[in-house]
Amino acid sequence: MSRAIQLAKRGRYTCDPNPRVGCVICKEGQVIAEGWHAVSGEAHAEVNALNQCDDASDSTVYITLEPCSHHGRTPPCVDALINANVKEVIIAMSDPNPLVSGSGINKLEEAGIKVKQGLLEVEAIKLNPGFVKRMTLVKPYVRCKLAMSLDGRTALANGDSQWISSEQSRKDVHRLRAASSAILSTVETVISDDASLNARDLEFDVKQPVRVIIDRQLGISSQAKLFSIAGKVIIYTEKENDERLNELYKVGAEVIFIPASESWLAGVFTHLAKKYEINEVLVEAGATFSGSLIEAGLVDELVIYMAPILLGDTAQALLKLEPLNKLKQAKKLNLIDVRQCASDIRLTYSL
Amino acid sequence: MSRAIQLAKRGRYTCDPNPRVGCVICKEGQVIAEGWHAVSGEAHAEVNALNQCDDASDSTVYITLEPCSHHGRTPPCVDALINANVKEVIIAMSDPNPLVSGSGINKLEEAGIKVKQGLLEVEAIKLNPGFVKRMTLVKPYVRCKLAMSLDGRTALANGDSQWISSEQSRKDVHRLRAASSAILSTVETVISDDASLNARDLEFDVKQPVRVIIDRQLGISSQAKLFSIAGKVIIYTEKENDERLNELYKVGAEVIFIPASESWLAGVFTHLAKKYEINEVLVEAGATFSGSLIEAGLVDELVIYMAPILLGDTAQALLKLEPLNKLKQAKKLNLIDVRQCASDIRLTYSL
Repeated sequence: MSRAIQLAKRGRYTCDPNPRVGCVICKEGQVIAEGWHAVSGEAHAEVNALNQCDDASDSTVYITLEPCSHHGRTPPCVDALINANVKEVIIAMSDPNPLVSGSGINKLEEAGIKVKQGLLEVEAIKLNPGFVKRMTLVKPYVRCKLAMSLDGRTALANGDSQWISSEQSRKDVHRLRAASSAILSTVETVISDDASLNARDLEFDVKQPVRVIIDRQLGISSQAKLFSIAGKVIIYTEKENDERLNELYKVGAEVIFIPASESWLAGVFTHLAKKYEINEVLVEAGATFSGSLIEAGLVDELVIYMAPILLGDTAQALLKLEPLNKLKQAKKLNLIDVRQCASDIRLTYSL
Repeated sequence: MSRAIQLAKRGRYTCDPNPRVGCVICKEGQVIAEGWHAVSGEAHAEVNALNQCDDASDSTVYITLEPCSHHGRTPPCVDALINANVKEVIIAMSDPNPLVSGSGINKLEEAGIKVKQGLLEVEAIKLNPGFVKRMTLVKPYVRCKLAMSLDGRTALANGDSQWISSEQSRKDVHRLRAASSAILSTVETVISDDASLNARDLEFDVKQPVRVIIDRQLGISSQAKLFSIAGKVIIYTEKENDERLNELYKVGAEVIFIPASESWLAGVFTHLAKKYEINEVLVEAGATFSGSLIEAGLVDELVIYMAPILLGDTAQALLKLEPLNKLKQAKKLNLIDVRQCASDIRLTYSL
């Protein structure tokens, strides 16, 4: 199963919006085939593995996720396993979609195949935080990425911020982007950085993430660089304005109007999950927007690239947050990963 | 030699102002004795090791530091090695004191003992950053310790700062204090925290560090808690005031007057090295004083305890520094250690 989890990760940059799934087929204690889900719409992990061996009868099949029992863009994997006459199927986690969860297992058992479930379940869930959250809560998994100095500053007082982080950190951000279903930013960031918000300069194939811009007043220029780059751009706004809408349609953007409300931002994320099957969102925005997302409880994970420089008290803050009265009120984050990116450190916290 | 370096560390909390030194004696490929320098004024590492074995003749002796050839508070170790008839001495680093460096080696060689030098030299130098710096530059090694939130804040806007860091981090600070020759703070910190600045609650013997207070205007109250605790307190001031001086003498403090100048702070450190044999200083002060020390180039090492909380832009800055015009002007620090202290991370940078 550990190997199957490794294999699943190979689909990280290409299988979206489907989950990352790996499969290993064993017979008489030997691995006879391996597979993973590479590209959505193409064969699933189980089928890829079955295609690798001449005879899977009497085998034990390890799969990181319960095999599907319904016809999607490909025929059900459960049927393929039954037809191949496998003896036993070991599943790390059941399908997180409450509507189909367990039906794959039932169908296998009805066909006389022995099924076990729960091996390395925690690791399997971690493979697909976004897919699991979308299936269970109809919301994407939200990562907020920030780059800062050692003393928590993102730019000088005069705005100079190029570059806080090392080249290797910036490359790592492109990997993070590539592994995301969507990059979300604000019109303010698009204007100030004229950002492209795509995944670039990587040595592997990538399914480009959707770019999502929060623009409540619908003020974005149709000349912004991100419209000149291939790939979907979705703009969320509170403002109905047909003229601007048409202008933005012409440069290929979709504009989604959601009427202003207290839970407007939460509504954006739900819409992304429902309409666009967005599993994982990478937020790349400034101190104000990132701060408000965190305060609204909409961030699952914080990824911080910390450069070994000191910028001092006049430089710009990492996050704008409501002042606290007591230190004890500060919410405690949970450190889940630390690693080095050249001279920087990358810190990952769950919220 | 690796073992000798391990042994040297056992003197970390007790041998000050002497260097941490370890010694291993081998004969026919077997370790026959080990020693380290435990307490200043008592036997050195070599003598402690020689005392452990009946017959060190024909042995090879590994020492982390060139043995002394002069009478200090104890007789020269070189004589003890010669008298023991050892065959060979392997030294990690020569004596950093330029006045005696090499004389121990010469004396051994004159007595017909084979001497080699340089094995694990870098590691041996790291054992005694303060002793080496004091001997070569007549200045102590200065560590600046700070505790902050993930976003680089040390306290709320209203001043609440208890506690930013975890209990385990605060205990680690007491180990840092215990390993220091002096704790240096400012009158502002002493007033606002009524700090004791001693090493407490440790499960091993400690030589209490000297407490050094920077008080340019000599405004410190003789009622401050730190005077009620055993151990030396030295106050550095720019102000000559006999009345205050007498009052502070009565509570056991030494007051050192250094006339105001641009290099006043550098003068304080030189004085600490020269007069008090201070090897390693731990600075525990606020954002203004710590910032000015860093800007004056007086800090060798920054130790930061980073708690997994976010305090936002209204909370207090880690360091007050002169604003920069260009990000590229920011001085790059060098990360030398990362480790976990319960939920916090401890980051150590050299400057």
